[in-house]
Amino acid sequence: MYQLHYFPGNANAAPHMVLEEIGRRHELVLVDRAMNAQKSNDYLKLNPNGRIPTLIDGDLVLFEAAAIILHLVDQHPEADLAPRIGARERAKFYQWMIFLTNSLQEELMIWQYPDRLTGSDVAATEIVRQGAEKRAGAYLDVIEQHLTANGPLFLGDKLSAADFYLVMLARWARPMANPPRARPHIANLLDKITALPAVRRAYAREGITGEIC
Amino acid sequence: MYQLHYFPGNANAAPHMVLEEIGRRHELVLVDRAMNAQKSNDYLKLNPNGRIPTLIDGDLVLFEAAAIILHLVDQHPEADLAPRIGARERAKFYQWMIFLTNSLQEELMIWQYPDRLTGSDVAATEIVRQGAEKRAGAYLDVIEQHLTANGPLFLGDKLSAADFYLVMLARWARPMANPPRARPHIANLLDKITALPAVRRAYAREGITGEIC
Repeated sequence: MYQLHYFPGNANAAPHMVLEEIGRRHELVLVDRAMNAQKSNDYLKLNPNGRIPTLIDGDLVLFEAAAIILHLVDQHPEADLAPRIGARERAKFYQWMIFLTNSLQEELMIWQYPDRLTGSDVAATEIVRQGAEKRAGAYLDVIEQHLTANGPLFLGDKLSAADFYLVMLARWARPMANPPRARPHIANLLDKITALPAVRRAYAREGITGEIC
Repeated sequence: MYQLHYFPGNANAAPHMVLEEIGRRHELVLVDRAMNAQKSNDYLKLNPNGRIPTLIDGDLVLFEAAAIILHLVDQHPEADLAPRIGARERAKFYQWMIFLTNSLQEELMIWQYPDRLTGSDVAATEIVRQGAEKRAGAYLDVIEQHLTANGPLFLGDKLSAADFYLVMLARWARPMANPPRARPHIANLLDKITALPAVRRAYAREGITGEIC
């Protein structure tokens, strides 16, 4: 049985949606950030970066949310959450997954925690925060442009785990002055994906109710 | 024939090594950063983020270096640069590729270009630069710890494209006060990989000679 180490709404959310959509049994293990448990010795043995999530799959210990998703979609082709290996669309799936994790996610992390980059310098923190919001917005514009031409989902009409990933990040980005939903094609994607029972179950199991993103 | 849009030593380097190792014909197309060509209208049509590289594979236009690599290793299983789909090691390959691109690469980008985050604020820029170097160092420590226990390469004795990716990033990180090579297991990996003819050919074709990293 899969075991997902999580904290409500953290980067576990997209892997969790994938697990729910696949429909395989999985156990959630809370990593209590309120107690800084992600930096405990026991957790660091699983995840040397002290970040959330980690997936346990038998003797496999896996970190990085996007990697967990790639692993899960490979293990469960019947769930059809990624194009088959060798298809042209598989390459685009990789592209959007990588872009979401190394660009939008990273920028949103800076935007949420600018002081990790600037320490106690209040002025520098505000400069960094504003810059991150601007760049995250530009990345969202790139996604909106893609969905406008090729949507309604990342891979056209075909649901993929990349759509789940955007929902997760869009939730983080809700407080932005120009939030993801301000872009109509992104809003449409978010509506479609958050309507899926698997997505609602994942957030509900994490204790998150109300509007997801 | 593959076409790789590149600038010497940029994020194209690892995809380029993979292309050389695969041994398939490929054409290099210079994106002249000196002329800001990566932000030209023509290039933005290929790569809406205005970043390098982009791979053209027939009618497929692909950006994100890590995604290009995942596509290439899937298209050429005979080159054996990634574990087969479904293998446990495939998941670890994903993990390290994702970690390299969303953590080490992103931090090195901040370290190289801190003013992208801080604009003209000199003091803030220096704070951000120093913090990025520290975090990049911590990520390198995680890799060193992994290689110490599980090396000499990312997947043990098995060469994979993740090793190429580290070489590319290690080159960028050479000017760090505590550079990648200061860690003995990373140094050993870099020695092994930079000794490969394909890796030397890729850098030579980009006009880079002398020590790679």
